[in-house]
Amino acid sequence: KALVLLIPTITKDDIMNPEMTRVVLASRPEGKPSLANFSLETSAMPEPAEGQFLARTIWLSLDPYMRGRMSATRSYAKPVEIGDAMEGACVAQVVTSRHQGFAAGDYVMAPLGWVSHGLSNGTGVIKLNPDTAPLSTALGVLGMPGMTAWTGLNLIAQAKAGETVLISAATGAVGSLAGQLAHAKGMKVIGVAGGAEKCAYAVEMFGYDHCIDHRAFTDAHSMTEALAAAAPDGIDVYFENVGGITLQATLPLMRQHGRIAVCGLIAWYSGQGMEKAVPSPAVMFSILSQRLKVEGFIVSDHYQHMGDFLAEVAPMVVDGRITYRETISHGLETAPSAFLKMLEGGNFGKQLVSVDTE
Amino acid sequence: KALVLLIPTITKDDIMNPEMTRVVLASRPEGKPSLANFSLETSAMPEPAEGQFLARTIWLSLDPYMRGRMSATRSYAKPVEIGDAMEGACVAQVVTSRHQGFAAGDYVMAPLGWVSHGLSNGTGVIKLNPDTAPLSTALGVLGMPGMTAWTGLNLIAQAKAGETVLISAATGAVGSLAGQLAHAKGMKVIGVAGGAEKCAYAVEMFGYDHCIDHRAFTDAHSMTEALAAAAPDGIDVYFENVGGITLQATLPLMRQHGRIAVCGLIAWYSGQGMEKAVPSPAVMFSILSQRLKVEGFIVSDHYQHMGDFLAEVAPMVVDGRITYRETISHGLETAPSAFLKMLEGGNFGKQLVSVDTE
Repeated sequence: KALVLLIPTITKDDIMNPEMTRVVLASRPEGKPSLANFSLETSAMPEPAEGQFLARTIWLSLDPYMRGRMSATRSYAKPVEIGDAMEGACVAQVVTSRHQGFAAGDYVMAPLGWVSHGLSNGTGVIKLNPDTAPLSTALGVLGMPGMTAWTGLNLIAQAKAGETVLISAATGAVGSLAGQLAHAKGMKVIGVAGGAEKCAYAVEMFGYDHCIDHRAFTDAHSMTEALAAAAPDGIDVYFENVGGITLQATLPLMRQHGRIAVCGLIAWYSGQGMEKAVPSPAVMFSILSQRLKVEGFIVSDHYQHMGDFLAEVAPMVVDGRITYRETISHGLETAPSAFLKMLEGGNFGKQLVSVDTE
Repeated sequence: KALVLLIPTITKDDIMNPEMTRVVLASRPEGKPSLANFSLETSAMPEPAEGQFLARTIWLSLDPYMRGRMSATRSYAKPVEIGDAMEGACVAQVVTSRHQGFAAGDYVMAPLGWVSHGLSNGTGVIKLNPDTAPLSTALGVLGMPGMTAWTGLNLIAQAKAGETVLISAATGAVGSLAGQLAHAKGMKVIGVAGGAEKCAYAVEMFGYDHCIDHRAFTDAHSMTEALAAAAPDGIDVYFENVGGITLQATLPLMRQHGRIAVCGLIAWYSGQGMEKAVPSPAVMFSILSQRLKVEGFIVSDHYQHMGDFLAEVAPMVVDGRITYRETISHGLETAPSAFLKMLEGGNFGKQLVSVDTE
């Protein structure tokens, strides 16, 4: 595995180009989102006010949580307003600065959104050192998804050596690190992923002992049998990224005092499969009879532990003990189609948009 | 509230009567259990072997968990076999003993089952002092149900002063103590019970700030509105005894980082209401978006804290700070009908069978 250092430079165009582009939410999806829910807009390049800086986006991160921001229903964050740029984290470079903490040329991770350029007052911005690790890792294995994997496994599920952990979306940005951290911890690690290729890669590269292809099953019962063959002693920890039949297939295998860290429910994000979802009494009776602890979490509640996470994981990335994969879509205008594909499992590892990596 | 001390004595009949009676499981219920699932049997009085004692039942405890023992499905304990006596805890008095730890005349709490007399080798037996508190409290407020209330509130939900707690089955053996302990702790306490009489009593006697009559609602949405009026800031802790529409009505009101202690799901114990149960994705999305911790528990996992529980609660019962109610059915032969009525909410506080309180 080669770690390619990407060293962007400022070109004359970046400074002189008077226009910026952004992807806005054009309408709210009903059910599955489509390209019609997005539109690409061009506007004049903004000028930073005092206390602000202007940055150009190098990498845009695409993440499943963004599906929730497209809808107006109650969630842990406010929805994106119609006509506003989609939210998102970026790796960017400061172009001009009137903020005393940032200078032109600085690399940052910043919540600029789905934009070619953006203004920031510094809120939520972290400076990056491009010599430590590839810049894109700040959005993946050493960023929010990586911290999510570490938090769910350690702080929420309190996973321990010798236990069996099941991880759904096993090769995704979160799952692929969760699997490797669990393996490094001395756990038995079972994955669920979509497709034989992902499953093979999960075992070869991410330290999974077994990986089950959920596409091979149309009913939860047969999937339970496959999981039981991989985890004959049952499952102590389930790192839940998907919901759907994977949750249903897993419940009968949970051991007493098992923990389910609820990180995501991507199978249900657009309302598909709701009618055939496991009935809630089955979930509640599993919780009761097996004395499970089922806990939802969002990584931003735990950012006070970011230092602990980086201290543990960054050296493992740099020396190659932890590997990662990225799926890269080229050009901001490709962000909507890449996002829709990711929601269907079309990505492999961290989904990024290369906006301006020159 | 008068604490009536019940002081049983041994009569000649107890020793000379050559027969005992027991209620056995005659068949497994499909859906709601009925009287046909039980039968009353008479047999010769057993003789204790070396290391055993024979005891006569004074009080038999009836508890919702017994419904689970009637079915053959996986739960936290083995089902009762067809033809065996129903399981249950009793307050009993030792008649004859060949066990060095117990003497004739001793009062004990023992898992004898639904029987007039039973043998024991001392496993799970606790000696009782009839001068401390009424003997029946060992099966209720100072016994398993009381310990359940204390455990769920403190060890599982980690309820804190100033928070709002919702307790379903608010006037039951568990709920009535949970409500009083929460009130004593300085929480805002909301109850859900079946019927206006129970609700009025909950507020007057058990320290509830509000109590909602679930029978007044046919849909979860209108119940949510009533709960929201009682708990305008939302609910931090839900002490879950019932499932059903109460769970569905409560989920939208759970505050961020709320906790649900899953103690029982009586509304679903016989399969009623399953088809109209809240869909599991709604439960899982609440857990995720509000970062809830939902934890099932069974009190027997926590008996190492029994001393802490009794040290805190027994003085409060003795001096009247904690009150309790009992519903008493007379005669072992009435146990099945009393049990079926309890499953429908026909009891008020702790359900007991007075087997031989002479």
